[in-house]
Amino acid sequence: MIIVPEREIAALMTRDAAFDAVSGVFAAMASKDAYNFPVIREAIGHEDALYGFKGGFDKAGMALGVKAGGYWPHNLEKHGHINHQSTVFLFDPDTGMVKAMVGGNLLTALRTAAASSVSIKHLARKDARVMGMIGAGHQATFQLRAALEQGRFEKVIGWNYHPDMLPNLEKVATEAGLPFEAVELDGMGEADVIISITSAFAPSLMADHVSPGTHIACMGTDTKGKQEVEAALLARATVFTDEVAQSISIGEAQHAIAEGLIKQSDVHQIGAVINGTHKGRTSEDEITLFDGTGVGLQDLAVAAKVVELAVQQGVAIEVDF
Amino acid sequence: MIIVPEREIAALMTRDAAFDAVSGVFAAMASKDAYNFPVIREAIGHEDALYGFKGGFDKAGMALGVKAGGYWPHNLEKHGHINHQSTVFLFDPDTGMVKAMVGGNLLTALRTAAASSVSIKHLARKDARVMGMIGAGHQATFQLRAALEQGRFEKVIGWNYHPDMLPNLEKVATEAGLPFEAVELDGMGEADVIISITSAFAPSLMADHVSPGTHIACMGTDTKGKQEVEAALLARATVFTDEVAQSISIGEAQHAIAEGLIKQSDVHQIGAVINGTHKGRTSEDEITLFDGTGVGLQDLAVAAKVVELAVQQGVAIEVDF
Repeated sequence: MIIVPEREIAALMTRDAAFDAVSGVFAAMASKDAYNFPVIREAIGHEDALYGFKGGFDKAGMALGVKAGGYWPHNLEKHGHINHQSTVFLFDPDTGMVKAMVGGNLLTALRTAAASSVSIKHLARKDARVMGMIGAGHQATFQLRAALEQGRFEKVIGWNYHPDMLPNLEKVATEAGLPFEAVELDGMGEADVIISITSAFAPSLMADHVSPGTHIACMGTDTKGKQEVEAALLARATVFTDEVAQSISIGEAQHAIAEGLIKQSDVHQIGAVINGTHKGRTSEDEITLFDGTGVGLQDLAVAAKVVELAVQQGVAIEVDF
Repeated sequence: MIIVPEREIAALMTRDAAFDAVSGVFAAMASKDAYNFPVIREAIGHEDALYGFKGGFDKAGMALGVKAGGYWPHNLEKHGHINHQSTVFLFDPDTGMVKAMVGGNLLTALRTAAASSVSIKHLARKDARVMGMIGAGHQATFQLRAALEQGRFEKVIGWNYHPDMLPNLEKVATEAGLPFEAVELDGMGEADVIISITSAFAPSLMADHVSPGTHIACMGTDTKGKQEVEAALLARATVFTDEVAQSISIGEAQHAIAEGLIKQSDVHQIGAVINGTHKGRTSEDEITLFDGTGVGLQDLAVAAKVVELAVQQGVAIEVDF
């Protein structure tokens, strides 16, 4: 079997490769060639940790396995490790034998960034020029970097609950040669694309903050109770997601569904747009919204790619297991 | 992190060590220091395989992790691998980082054998002399070998649907220096302890086949629909199990519960007997029945022990992950 340690991932995995892997598996999900297993997520009663498993099988990409790990809130302060810890295990779908073990921390950031990036490619207007960011934490920099590769953006605007974190966004914009401007939430009307990546439990972005024709990617809501945008915005938008079942239960759509503003059939798989079985955006004025909830198949897809790259580049550790 | 490949397990793990590990974690489950996560079990639609995850956390033994794998029915014929394939992954409960990867095939056989063995130690009469076996497949030999270490048995009797497999049992009996006798099911009345280990969907052992004072360990039923013994036998017996929720839904007790012959509160945790909070057997005439359904915590417990032994004996593979 093959082992790819966390420390090797940064040099191996590219944003392009993550984009292709995530795009491919979203397409496979929509064509029913790939499916996610039920998610296990447990508060284990030790170190306030959340631990669990996200598994799945992609018959098209022949990726079978699980991401295991979770959130240890005291890691950094107590042990100097990052708080999110995960590892991806791949199995041979032909035999059930373990095939690879891959560090999952950076991969999780990259596959999450790739998801909003895929949504921008397929749903944003081609003439989108202003990129809006809501949230300026560590993950926001990944989202922004990947997003800026999906269009001819000319400017980045950003808002964060703690404005002192906005330089994180400015740094990425500057690297991409773009000006950055801090705005209030009602300044988001200037944006053609908005990525929201916070862990809020109340909406920041309201329906009236958003101009016609905007594409919004809501990437922060992955739990019951979390919310980034006003539910009315989902009623006004055409809503897409990675996985409908998650979107309406733990994703951003949970609130619009609960309030009766939209119904399950109003939430479409992004993979159907990739496959061409859903038309996607149909006018310049349409608001499109991608509810990125995060699925195990994304993790398996990027991990499988990293294993391939590690073997090609001679950095895979081989263990006779 | 530590890797212990499948090929090393046979030389490392002893039946005694498996017994202690399983006994300890059953006790921790009963004292609520350890719990199993919901089981994921998926028919993946490829190679007729069943694949899934059994995870848990034992706060007493500080074992956190998951057994992943399943059943690939064509493995042997197509690839020369055994059909059951599993791997155990252990995580550090303090940080969420992966700690060890251990081959899970032999360990699964040993922990299953240890479970019936633990039940015999705590529930069989001290003067039990005749050991009865129902089932004579590969796993039956593990159960018998472990069971014979839990008493002063003088004879083994056995029944199997295909009698031509009975020499499997005779071989183990002979190794232990005991005579073996093939019997019909109504000959099981002679047994003081009976282990049933089949994958049947209809009962073999009927209530009237069993004498007063017998201890029965039903080890084969782990799925809805499977059944090894007549439901009336559970009504006549005092029923114990590893995990009550599994026992009444996918274990042997499912049928007696469905028929209204017993209720959930009639099914007791074996761990409570180990801990001394349940009195266990109370008379020489009482029939005791252990419904062994198999839980992820057993796998984590034996895997943690094997890691300890592998490190002690210098055969652990260390990988800088």
